[in-house]
Amino acid sequence: MSQKDAFVTEITPRSQDFSRWYVDVVRRAELADYSPVKGCMVIRPYGYAIWELIQAALDKEIKRTGHVNAYFPLFIPNSLLTREAEHVEGFAPQVAYVTHGGGEELEEKLVVRPTSEAIIGTMYAKWVQSWRDLPILLNQWANVVRWEKVTRPFLRTTEFLWQEGHTAHETPEEGETETRKMLDVYADLCASLLAMPVVKGIKSESEKFAGALRTYSIEALMGDGRALQAGTSHNLGQNFAKAFDITFQARDKSLQHVWGTSWGVTTRLIGAVIMTHGDDSGLVLPPNVAPYQVVIVPIGRDNWRETVLPTAQRLEQDLVNAGIRVMLDARDERPGWKFSEWEMRGVPLRLEVGPKDIEKAQVMLARRDTREKLSAPMDGLAPRVRALLEDIQQSLLARALKFREDHTHRADDYETFKTTMEGRPGFVVAPWCGSAECEAHIKTDTQATIRNMPLDGTAPEGKGCVRCGNPAVAEAWFAKAY
Amino acid sequence: MSQKDAFVTEITPRSQDFSRWYVDVVRRAELADYSPVKGCMVIRPYGYAIWELIQAALDKEIKRTGHVNAYFPLFIPNSLLTREAEHVEGFAPQVAYVTHGGGEELEEKLVVRPTSEAIIGTMYAKWVQSWRDLPILLNQWANVVRWEKVTRPFLRTTEFLWQEGHTAHETPEEGETETRKMLDVYADLCASLLAMPVVKGIKSESEKFAGALRTYSIEALMGDGRALQAGTSHNLGQNFAKAFDITFQARDKSLQHVWGTSWGVTTRLIGAVIMTHGDDSGLVLPPNVAPYQVVIVPIGRDNWRETVLPTAQRLEQDLVNAGIRVMLDARDERPGWKFSEWEMRGVPLRLEVGPKDIEKAQVMLARRDTREKLSAPMDGLAPRVRALLEDIQQSLLARALKFREDHTHRADDYETFKTTMEGRPGFVVAPWCGSAECEAHIKTDTQATIRNMPLDGTAPEGKGCVRCGNPAVAEAWFAKAY
Repeated sequence: MSQKDAFVTEITPRSQDFSRWYVDVVRRAELADYSPVKGCMVIRPYGYAIWELIQAALDKEIKRTGHVNAYFPLFIPNSLLTREAEHVEGFAPQVAYVTHGGGEELEEKLVVRPTSEAIIGTMYAKWVQSWRDLPILLNQWANVVRWEKVTRPFLRTTEFLWQEGHTAHETPEEGETETRKMLDVYADLCASLLAMPVVKGIKSESEKFAGALRTYSIEALMGDGRALQAGTSHNLGQNFAKAFDITFQARDKSLQHVWGTSWGVTTRLIGAVIMTHGDDSGLVLPPNVAPYQVVIVPIGRDNWRETVLPTAQRLEQDLVNAGIRVMLDARDERPGWKFSEWEMRGVPLRLEVGPKDIEKAQVMLARRDTREKLSAPMDGLAPRVRALLEDIQQSLLARALKFREDHTHRADDYETFKTTMEGRPGFVVAPWCGSAECEAHIKTDTQATIRNMPLDGTAPEGKGCVRCGNPAVAEAWFAKAY
Repeated sequence: MSQKDAFVTEITPRSQDFSRWYVDVVRRAELADYSPVKGCMVIRPYGYAIWELIQAALDKEIKRTGHVNAYFPLFIPNSLLTREAEHVEGFAPQVAYVTHGGGEELEEKLVVRPTSEAIIGTMYAKWVQSWRDLPILLNQWANVVRWEKVTRPFLRTTEFLWQEGHTAHETPEEGETETRKMLDVYADLCASLLAMPVVKGIKSESEKFAGALRTYSIEALMGDGRALQAGTSHNLGQNFAKAFDITFQARDKSLQHVWGTSWGVTTRLIGAVIMTHGDDSGLVLPPNVAPYQVVIVPIGRDNWRETVLPTAQRLEQDLVNAGIRVMLDARDERPGWKFSEWEMRGVPLRLEVGPKDIEKAQVMLARRDTREKLSAPMDGLAPRVRALLEDIQQSLLARALKFREDHTHRADDYETFKTTMEGRPGFVVAPWCGSAECEAHIKTDTQATIRNMPLDGTAPEGKGCVRCGNPAVAEAWFAKAY
């Protein structure tokens, strides 16, 4: 077991090197592993179980809001990708090409989808004839490929998993409503499932999706003070409809182009959870997204299998019956080793039970987030555990919210902005004139980018751009970002 | 609506041209559509909803039998695919190659996975050290690509969706037990979910998976008398373990290679459901795999929205509350048009409600499978509907089983065999000597292949091969197959 012990304790402290800490946690907790394919990762069962919980919760919301799932081809003929000019310009440098299939060179090379607007747009052009066929509200769960130079598990990989919603509407108003509705769905999911507060806003022109009219994003603050884009929702206007001839006969009999949207979140959310809640001991999982919400560790002398295990099994069954996800760790290891392993893997609640506990008809409960320990009677255990899990979920969200508030600053002049932006301070909110030049200049000076701007779209009264002093169009949220 | 009407009635009769009937049903029922990518299809929402029901039921069984899900890269370096000699020989002609990525030619071309033994085997070699690490019981839900010359929606497409289980074991006995266990899981799923009886058996050497020791399959009989391989489970022996160096320290401290299995079913199952149960009016869906189990059609005069719709909505809610999947068709179409549309789309039960029904506090129920109509009181409707759905499910299974029995023949001499095999008679069971030569000869003479052979593996006593007369090793199930 010495090898395994070493494995567990080998996590670089977060304060010492956040990036190494992250990779250590990903690998030691068996969330993901490197693969023999450059830039591609293997999502291991513990990491995939988190993705399954995200999928289940999000799929339910996607359906509740009227969408249905479908599946479109992995390959996109190159000629289709090039139809929307901005789109191809944005994605061409990142795509992988299939040039040979079935032992022959292909007449036209195929793009491995980096996103599916082009192939889905082509189908919508076939399916939509009349305003009666609208809206089309589709979603797809799929893998996509974007060639990346520098990769990091979950955060940026050549292949990743995601969902991509693609909708077509009769009017621009409906398109905008849809775009904003899905942004809200994402933000609510991050809060309720991942205990992760996000800043909702609109992207600057330079940061919007290639081919979109407007891109909205949710931005989260990671434990090292860097921001992470956690999801995007695009109002495509009529750009793709025009490129792919998606027309319909309107109520007034005129021929119109549909109004499109697309929106997606990815396996990056797993990385976001790790970096929002983790600590020096490893992962800290919010109960709602934890594959195991409770780990039961039997305590006792050599004969614990006879004296303690039957009780542990009964407690496991009680909790399972109450709908709680439980792992009973009955391996032949010492309890202390099990404690650190499950701490490292972020299980929200540890339940210890030994001979003395059995005598007193109680168990010990240890919270992963606060490390508090408390005893609880076996009688009525399930509701007690459920309440504790709910409390942990809320506490983690409150802690992350407090962290973000403590790491959100304001700056109205450039000297203050630059000083405040030193290191990794979190968000710095500052007035901006709307020019790409100032945006680029600020990035060069400080490495910070505009994450997004408030949804209400109102210009801050009487304020000048933090860099050039010209009238500000928005209070932009700046940060150094992943 | 004339265009739509034409659309619905344009299904080629099954008896006239089964293949065209199949494609008509797939397209008219909006299960799938052709895409601009040769050999690839779009799975439309109604077809994808069937896949989601299959996934949910099978994923539950996969987990119940101790497996967990994970995700491995889409791309496989060509050098890995070539490690197992038979494997590469079997798959190389069918693979698609990525040669360019990120604007550059790749040093080594990447294979788009046709199956994942090679990439998963590489990871298992890293993960497995000791017998304590075994078994590994993983499954993956993914897309795979196999270049096909002739394609047909769901049955054979260049890209398709599937699950692939990959396990590693300490002993050959465990490997064999796993292989057979998953075959049983597939067979039970086909019966209970798809109302489709299957023949479980072992493949001949020439039909086994490239790189396997033994391949087991489930074979179903389609409505045209052709067989369809509906799932396979492979005992890989130590072939991949040796090719990929998957070794472990055994209990006796010796270094051993693991024993592997892999098993999969695909979106082909959707095609199997269509061809097992469909009729001249279109799709007939078993209730357990029907996206909508009941369609409610309000009947009435022009004012039906005021007089009938509220009652229809109340009934819808009653059924939804009872866990039944319901579609209330409140579109502005005449009821007769709705009847044929939902018949064509295979909804198991139609519920009609009109002003006279409301007066009598009853509804009319029409079964898709038998076309029987019966009235039922609104009071206690949900349990009544549930019982009817269960009866439809069982009746469809019984009908398919009867069809298979009526289309399973025996032949002990070659003349009888050839005569019986004329047309598309279903299965012909005949003794076989085990030689690839006879197998190939029979195929040339009759187009029939050995689908599989009984699991018990006993030679039929005193029988000679149907073709050569040499002692038979098995009673093989022959058929013309998809």
